[in-house]
Amino acid sequence: MAVSPTLQRTVVPAREGRAVLVSSGQRVRVVDLEGGQVGDVFVFARDDLSEHHSASHTRAQIDRLFPKVGEQFFTNRRRPVLTLVEDTSVGRHDMLIAACDPERYASLGVAGWHASCADNLRLALAPFTPAPPVVPQPINIFMRIPVDEHDDLSWLPAATGAGDSITFRAEMDCVVVVSSCPQDIAVINGGVPTSLAIDVLEAEDPAPQGATHRSGKQSLS
Amino acid sequence: MAVSPTLQRTVVPAREGRAVLVSSGQRVRVVDLEGGQVGDVFVFARDDLSEHHSASHTRAQIDRLFPKVGEQFFTNRRRPVLTLVEDTSVGRHDMLIAACDPERYASLGVAGWHASCADNLRLALAPFTPAPPVVPQPINIFMRIPVDEHDDLSWLPAATGAGDSITFRAEMDCVVVVSSCPQDIAVINGGVPTSLAIDVLEAEDPAPQGATHRSGKQSLS
Repeated sequence: MAVSPTLQRTVVPAREGRAVLVSSGQRVRVVDLEGGQVGDVFVFARDDLSEHHSASHTRAQIDRLFPKVGEQFFTNRRRPVLTLVEDTSVGRHDMLIAACDPERYASLGVAGWHASCADNLRLALAPFTPAPPVVPQPINIFMRIPVDEHDDLSWLPAATGAGDSITFRAEMDCVVVVSSCPQDIAVINGGVPTSLAIDVLEAEDPAPQGATHRSGKQSLS
Repeated sequence: MAVSPTLQRTVVPAREGRAVLVSSGQRVRVVDLEGGQVGDVFVFARDDLSEHHSASHTRAQIDRLFPKVGEQFFTNRRRPVLTLVEDTSVGRHDMLIAACDPERYASLGVAGWHASCADNLRLALAPFTPAPPVVPQPINIFMRIPVDEHDDLSWLPAATGAGDSITFRAEMDCVVVVSSCPQDIAVINGGVPTSLAIDVLEAEDPAPQGATHRSGKQSLS
């Protein structure tokens, strides 16, 4: 049976968020359509949104600030939820910084409403009940926050070109939310937020049952 | 009026957790009684436990992996909750790694029950309702998880000596939970968990109203 390699494309307009359903074994690709744009990615177990990707659990499992291609992301229940399978960007991403939210923009001097990744998450998940109890630390794709030898962080503009993408394989049925980060005060989006696209792709080679636990340093706490 | 500088000492036995109430302006000191022991510290707003210290919001505010003396910790609503006022240890602490939990010990090969910082938190907060909806990323005091130039993490034994301490000033009324980390498989506690103490100290010099927002890089997202 011939199937289209792209099952579904969802455009995430600048400053907005979208949710997609991804089944275990499918791949989900986020494309930076114009370049220089950060995406805040949140991942929840489809059958229970209180289980979600957790940066602190992922770091504990992989001994790195961000997975390499072939490594996995883990939930707050320490189950693998995504595997990073391809990255055509310069490979700089962040899992240290909270999603922007109304309080953040207020502290930056914005008077009145400003779109935020936290609100985009809430809006994108509105059809799903019960809502998750928290705004998890996002997977901030294309966001450049290098850590120097003094543990200081720098905030740099995203270095992606138009069409750069990052691709994950889902290790469980999940809800993936992508927010095209509306930050236009700090430099991370080069000052002008633009759009992203989410492509959900058919499983190339369905993973055998029970073969998903493959990250695996076990030396940790 | 002469007051004792130490209002209250709470010993946290090895592998257990304890909660203390701390009022805005009071200081809370965690002492490593025998040395080489990690403490997982969780902080919640006393009147609403859904507001809690958030490592990802703190990092966004201070541009560092961990506050320096004089810098603040922030909640998931971006309010200052603690100021780091004194550190007599070697000054290595962590805010990258999740609290250990039953799933962690299962993955490390433990059969049956093992004490964990996540369970210690739940037990310590049992008197408080409603319970917080999550186990937040802890402030892992005395825990040494250096990040190298490749973004790789190492797990090292705590380097504290007996009597070393870290002291915070509360910037709001809060519940502080300290778990004497029961990790005895990984090296972080030198293989043998020991006890900590929590001292709640009178405010030395009550902060003037409105003077608590003093961290303050505003260049971020």
